[in-house]
Amino acid sequence: MGVAEFDLIARIRARAATRGDVILGIGDDAALLQPPAGMQLVVAMDTLNSGVHFPPETAAADIGWKALAVNLSDLAAMGAQPAWCTLSLSLPDADAGFVDGFVDGFLELAERHGVALVGGDTTRGPLSVCVTVHGFVEPGTALRRAGARAGDEIWISGTVGDAAAALAQWRAGRGADAALRSRLDRPIPRVALGRALRGIASSCIDVSDGVLADLGHVCEASGIGALLDVDALPGSEALRLALDVEPRRVLQATGGDDYELCFTAPPETGEAIVRAAASADVAVARIGRIIEGGDIATHAADGGAWSAPGAGWIHFA
Amino acid sequence: MGVAEFDLIARIRARAATRGDVILGIGDDAALLQPPAGMQLVVAMDTLNSGVHFPPETAAADIGWKALAVNLSDLAAMGAQPAWCTLSLSLPDADAGFVDGFVDGFLELAERHGVALVGGDTTRGPLSVCVTVHGFVEPGTALRRAGARAGDEIWISGTVGDAAAALAQWRAGRGADAALRSRLDRPIPRVALGRALRGIASSCIDVSDGVLADLGHVCEASGIGALLDVDALPGSEALRLALDVEPRRVLQATGGDDYELCFTAPPETGEAIVRAAASADVAVARIGRIIEGGDIATHAADGGAWSAPGAGWIHFA
Repeated sequence: MGVAEFDLIARIRARAATRGDVILGIGDDAALLQPPAGMQLVVAMDTLNSGVHFPPETAAADIGWKALAVNLSDLAAMGAQPAWCTLSLSLPDADAGFVDGFVDGFLELAERHGVALVGGDTTRGPLSVCVTVHGFVEPGTALRRAGARAGDEIWISGTVGDAAAALAQWRAGRGADAALRSRLDRPIPRVALGRALRGIASSCIDVSDGVLADLGHVCEASGIGALLDVDALPGSEALRLALDVEPRRVLQATGGDDYELCFTAPPETGEAIVRAAASADVAVARIGRIIEGGDIATHAADGGAWSAPGAGWIHFA
Repeated sequence: MGVAEFDLIARIRARAATRGDVILGIGDDAALLQPPAGMQLVVAMDTLNSGVHFPPETAAADIGWKALAVNLSDLAAMGAQPAWCTLSLSLPDADAGFVDGFVDGFLELAERHGVALVGGDTTRGPLSVCVTVHGFVEPGTALRRAGARAGDEIWISGTVGDAAAALAQWRAGRGADAALRSRLDRPIPRVALGRALRGIASSCIDVSDGVLADLGHVCEASGIGALLDVDALPGSEALRLALDVEPRRVLQATGGDDYELCFTAPPETGEAIVRAAASADVAVARIGRIIEGGDIATHAADGGAWSAPGAGWIHFA
């Protein structure tokens, strides 16, 4: 830590909001926090590296937003109420303009969810952002990957495929469609939906690696298999305009970075789920069914076989 | 996240110990933890980047140890009892050998402090390690940077200067003295001492940036100044053998990475401090006195003026 780092921390500290349960925020060796009595603590940590998790020319404010969003999405998938976060920001140089922009996006999202930034560090290194988020959940009500049972229906929130389409456009050297690109840069963590699904959903995960890959995690954790109707995957108007049916299917089934919730529930809870989604102001769609076994079988709307050419987002390619 | 990342996570998960208060550890979207009733939560987060915070050829096990140690040191400086941690590991490629070595060092230290690794991620990027640690402290007993008062004595644990000397040797292209290098690579977080100082010390900080820089943080937070006797700074035998008096003074006053505790307390608590240090099995030494004003004045043992040519470790140089 050096002089310039103190300046950067001061810039961040001056703008960070606090909460009544933050005894001591940014500025000491550690943060001092008062968890609410009787609640369980939910902790997630995710890192975004430049060129791996976002295109290097991404706007600083979008990087800030996304770094917090992907973490809040993990809390959403557990049904947790977000409370606090810490931020470790590695920068090639002490660029105050970048930090100001980054903090704009980061705190804009933090404010929406009443999250206080309580600590962390800034340091020199290749551009990288690591965030840890903390939330609470009532004991016994957390949504987990394990818990899906044969016969459960599989649901997904919002639409999928936009973020992967924007990434594909960027990789192809084309200017990305603005609507698609905003899904890549500013994902919306489905916090209210996750909260509303407590007591209803039998399992839940957020779609960061792609529907097939993430549904695979649920199948593995729950010891079951799945039937997935690839044509039931909801897509945005922008995606339909951008892509033909087959490449769209591939992106929707295997593309990552959408940060929608994929969850399972018994068929008789269908009405409760639709009400929960309405209360959270997000659409949900049935996309398949949980079955015995350990595999995921995919098919098209007409019942014909369909299989994805690859699954998920491979970090170590 | 991709296939290879799952393999790495599985390697880590298979070896991570758990605790009774970990409801759900590695393997879901987030960890689920049960904080003890009536305690405050203490959270610290620090990142180590290759070439910035450790020499690039540092052994994987030492990087693992140090990444956790610098974070536990922050909890020690608050007087907190460590409990849980999360780890985000960015690697240029999925090197299982590196991960195994890293986990050796990381978990060796975690085990010593009963800390459970409960989550995080592995991802592709330049070698970087971000750790968040969680601990507890009884309400009202946390040690803070603010709280030092004029008349308080200034203390330090262990010895200082070894880590900076090893770094200087490495920068000069010389093989580092093994005793010095072990202080750079495997710092000892003073957790037991921090716990024992609750109710005694008026302020506390861990020495990561150098005694002068970190004492400066205490002065700023407490609104006071300090008189520091540079020749009272305890040094190891290895340091005395390696360096003449003047370069040794500079390293001891300004060198970082020692992770000793620097704390203040009223003179009448001297005996209690010595007992606390004995119970924590670490030496402590008086190095100066808190005074009015906002500056740090340094002097030599004979009372003559002495001033450091620079202060602390500048990350953004």
